[in-house]
Amino acid sequence: MSEKPNDAAATDTVTAAMLAIGDELLSGRTKDRNIGHLADMMTAAGIDLKEVRIVSDDHDAIVEAVRALSKRYTYLFTSGGIGPTHDDITADAIADAVGRECTHDPAAMALLADHYAGRGLEFTEARQRMARMPIGAAHIGNPVSKAPGFIVDNIHVMAGVPSVFQAMLDNVMPTLKTGAKIHSLSVACPYGEGDIGGPLAAIQKAHSNVVIGSYPRYDGKRFSTEIVARSRDLQAAQAAQDAIAAMIDAIVPND
Amino acid sequence: MSEKPNDAAATDTVTAAMLAIGDELLSGRTKDRNIGHLADMMTAAGIDLKEVRIVSDDHDAIVEAVRALSKRYTYLFTSGGIGPTHDDITADAIADAVGRECTHDPAAMALLADHYAGRGLEFTEARQRMARMPIGAAHIGNPVSKAPGFIVDNIHVMAGVPSVFQAMLDNVMPTLKTGAKIHSLSVACPYGEGDIGGPLAAIQKAHSNVVIGSYPRYDGKRFSTEIVARSRDLQAAQAAQDAIAAMIDAIVPND
Repeated sequence: MSEKPNDAAATDTVTAAMLAIGDELLSGRTKDRNIGHLADMMTAAGIDLKEVRIVSDDHDAIVEAVRALSKRYTYLFTSGGIGPTHDDITADAIADAVGRECTHDPAAMALLADHYAGRGLEFTEARQRMARMPIGAAHIGNPVSKAPGFIVDNIHVMAGVPSVFQAMLDNVMPTLKTGAKIHSLSVACPYGEGDIGGPLAAIQKAHSNVVIGSYPRYDGKRFSTEIVARSRDLQAAQAAQDAIAAMIDAIVPND
Repeated sequence: MSEKPNDAAATDTVTAAMLAIGDELLSGRTKDRNIGHLADMMTAAGIDLKEVRIVSDDHDAIVEAVRALSKRYTYLFTSGGIGPTHDDITADAIADAVGRECTHDPAAMALLADHYAGRGLEFTEARQRMARMPIGAAHIGNPVSKAPGFIVDNIHVMAGVPSVFQAMLDNVMPTLKTGAKIHSLSVACPYGEGDIGGPLAAIQKAHSNVVIGSYPRYDGKRFSTEIVARSRDLQAAQAAQDAIAAMIDAIVPND
């Protein structure tokens, strides 16, 4: 059973989408770790993550997804494609999607020039690519490797390397509108979904302001279920949780 | 360095998309493991996985994504939402998306009735829900827990529990058209992308029938890079790999 504190001040629904960019995610070479992390952070902030897409390093695919997702949700978060190599095309695609020119941002150029000078490294043309962003974009600080992410309109553009993505997201979180926290109360059920599906549907019907989810698990021999009651109204979630627990207690095992 | 055998018989490009369905993936409660598995299986079969989406257990969101993805790619694979509980709405949404009625499939009903009778379990209304699919759909065998997935048009509908998803996909793979295998040759590079971005872009330009990807890694202290040359033409991939290795050898470390 888990329970999250309510944020009485925030009542609006705030929504988000994520776009993970990179051929390596679709070839299987890299297993994404950023989607699950963003999901956890959004839930903790009371922001509804509504949709995730993964596309390849393809200009048109990125532009189309950015336009669709940024229009539909409060926030869009992207990961990947903002490094110094030729296959890092996210900054150009985002600029295209929002109708702005993509240029070497003066503040980012100064920041990176300083950074590489301090380390005695040449500020190569490749490294200068990391200063490119749509004109007027705001920076997202990068404590790991300095090259900033950026924010344009409601789009937050971050790196794909998980440690950098996480550091950038930590900098972004305090700037976001947060929604009313969702209370998520779970009940462990030793029976499979086939045993509880009927009564659980009746409980869902009786608790209309609670979303009840049922998550099967299979341990190689038999199924069990985790049942989760989610609501912005704590008392409503607790009432549904009580009803679920009573339903499970009433089941007579078949074997 | 990895290398995959060529499949000389297959030359067409075969594409795929995946749609993972479930509130639990977007809340962070469950970390998806099916996308990476499908990506690996597609790459091994020479099928280009082009796009992945994750949506919640929302009828309209599923219908919209199914229509968009099934129209655009050779195959669409879905995971999740075909269990016995009220929040399993994938079968209805798929039926709606393809314009067919969703009914209790007679063969699936017989299969499941037998299965539960053999185990001395009641074939509840909830369990009967698992026999629902669009009229005329073909079954995908489920050796783990019997309830079949299904295929309608180019859409392959599978379970979300990873062991069941994997077993279903094993049954689907032999039925798919496969593309010419992609040779993926990688070179480990001890330098960060900033050191190699310039010469690597030149190599990409000189090897136009090879897609060169650059994947940064950060170990907490410094960046290194894995560079991957991908092509359906083995000799072309090898030529690019040789050029990348020579480029790395020529770099004089800065520190």
